[in-house]
Amino acid sequence: MPVYAIGVDLGGTHLRVGAVRSDGTIEIKEKLPAEAKKGEVLSPVADAVKRIADQISKKGGTIAGVGLGFPGIVDPEQGIVYQSPHFPDWNRLDLHSFFKREFRWPIVIDNDANMAARGEGRHGAARGLKNFILLTLGTGVGGGIVANGEVFHGDGGFAGEVGHLVIEGDGASCPCGGKGCLEMYVSATGILRLVEESEDRRGREQLLGRVGLTADQSYRLTVASLYEAAREGDLFAHLIFKKMGSFLGIGLVSLINILGIETVILGGGVSQAWDFFIEPAKKEFSQRTYKETARRLKILRAELGDDAGLIGASGLLFQKSQKDR
Amino acid sequence: MPVYAIGVDLGGTHLRVGAVRSDGTIEIKEKLPAEAKKGEVLSPVADAVKRIADQISKKGGTIAGVGLGFPGIVDPEQGIVYQSPHFPDWNRLDLHSFFKREFRWPIVIDNDANMAARGEGRHGAARGLKNFILLTLGTGVGGGIVANGEVFHGDGGFAGEVGHLVIEGDGASCPCGGKGCLEMYVSATGILRLVEESEDRRGREQLLGRVGLTADQSYRLTVASLYEAAREGDLFAHLIFKKMGSFLGIGLVSLINILGIETVILGGGVSQAWDFFIEPAKKEFSQRTYKETARRLKILRAELGDDAGLIGASGLLFQKSQKDR
Repeated sequence: MPVYAIGVDLGGTHLRVGAVRSDGTIEIKEKLPAEAKKGEVLSPVADAVKRIADQISKKGGTIAGVGLGFPGIVDPEQGIVYQSPHFPDWNRLDLHSFFKREFRWPIVIDNDANMAARGEGRHGAARGLKNFILLTLGTGVGGGIVANGEVFHGDGGFAGEVGHLVIEGDGASCPCGGKGCLEMYVSATGILRLVEESEDRRGREQLLGRVGLTADQSYRLTVASLYEAAREGDLFAHLIFKKMGSFLGIGLVSLINILGIETVILGGGVSQAWDFFIEPAKKEFSQRTYKETARRLKILRAELGDDAGLIGASGLLFQKSQKDR
Repeated sequence: MPVYAIGVDLGGTHLRVGAVRSDGTIEIKEKLPAEAKKGEVLSPVADAVKRIADQISKKGGTIAGVGLGFPGIVDPEQGIVYQSPHFPDWNRLDLHSFFKREFRWPIVIDNDANMAARGEGRHGAARGLKNFILLTLGTGVGGGIVANGEVFHGDGGFAGEVGHLVIEGDGASCPCGGKGCLEMYVSATGILRLVEESEDRRGREQLLGRVGLTADQSYRLTVASLYEAAREGDLFAHLIFKKMGSFLGIGLVSLINILGIETVILGGGVSQAWDFFIEPAKKEFSQRTYKETARRLKILRAELGDDAGLIGASGLLFQKSQKDR
């Protein structure tokens, strides 16, 4: 009888739920829009898990448990989320108790980027690595730090908030209360801010024209269309990604000087634009660090795409149920 | 027969060597000036260790081994120092082989701030803490990260280079090649740079006059005399420490957002000026982080002063020799 874990990855815009085998293969998957309200998001998560569990049961499969990845600062031991950028009314929300009432299966809970890091570590770009850092460049910037083979949580799950690393002490204001946070320069939100605040107004207008938007519609620009424009040779789009890459390089300087970890995995939607930002990022890093530090840095692309989170969440569940046995 | 470890702490200006009991008490101690040349500094270290070992033997004591803390990026497994800010000609210098030729005792080698972190963890301000960060604010800024009860080294000993965390992407040039490194704002060197570059020329002249220096002699100013001036009520000195505190707060934002560790221990000579920089540092931190993150932060003063390094180095030796038994 095949055994599955159900993996859940809740992002700011989408909820992904899947039935995953212990080798990381996904059997059934659902992708739903996520509603940014407390009551409205947890129940749909529970419903989707039950739906998928039903399908697995009908096929004769067994459910080992549920692994849940949530955005925000999550205490994995208590199963509490302290705060979340996407769900502002989450404040010490007790996820563990909620889901314990919904299911009879064992559950594990962690931050979404930590789950994605586990996915890449078990089945993706970081296979076999004892130490690595996953950065997810999406709407925001997430981080998962794997040290000595385990996700490092710090005290109470507060580690890995890499998006709020300060790269410009006097820089752009961030919703977290900070200024000059990395997220304001290298996430999708940050990149569109760079476009918006660019002094090259002519370049911006040409770009908008190229993607079929008027100056008034600039709020409708996406990183995906900026990427397409760069591929078509738009110089303004190229410069924006170059700038973003330099900022990423500065962030990596702090990150690597603190953690001393050689391998950085880049995931998230923005990493699609890899070809346009990676060299500027490496160059900035090399200029700002000791030669030996620069020589050792390896930046790799994540391999599991949008599935990393639910694969990692399932993997953690399997790991835990093996230990408990 | 009492058992001792010999602890060595090599700094940029001084070499400290001591015979330490397993409870952290120091029996004999020597402090010598450190010469910033390769050949000239390792031999004096070996000589000082032998001198102290002789004294211990004459008293009937036993030497369990030697713990050595060195400034720079040290690979503790191989006993190699990659580079050191104070000893620029150190480049993949094999400390382990050198000292193995000098002594018959077991040896352990690590970065000086990591050794100091172990000292504070075993016998000082961080007793009983599973996770903490030690920052040494001296000529430069050193860092030791203790995670799950062990110093975290990253890959090959490159972790904890907290002085090179970037706080101003476009800031002051640092000898490491970087710009806006924390060290350029909160170390002794950094603080004197803030004095030098202050636009308040009148304030600076008054300060210099107060400590008995002419404008031409400003290069002779020390942080100790700046601290004395602040204690005497000098407003310019107060403002410099306030500025330094704010920069420290920015550095802590990045550090805590990445590591999620709640306790920061501040040591090093500059920490003497605690009363003048600590509130500005906490205020800056609180303004720039989530409320819960700010609520959790605890900043403590190191307790072992200049002895932290050699106490920690001895402690590591004892820990290792217990394991090997």
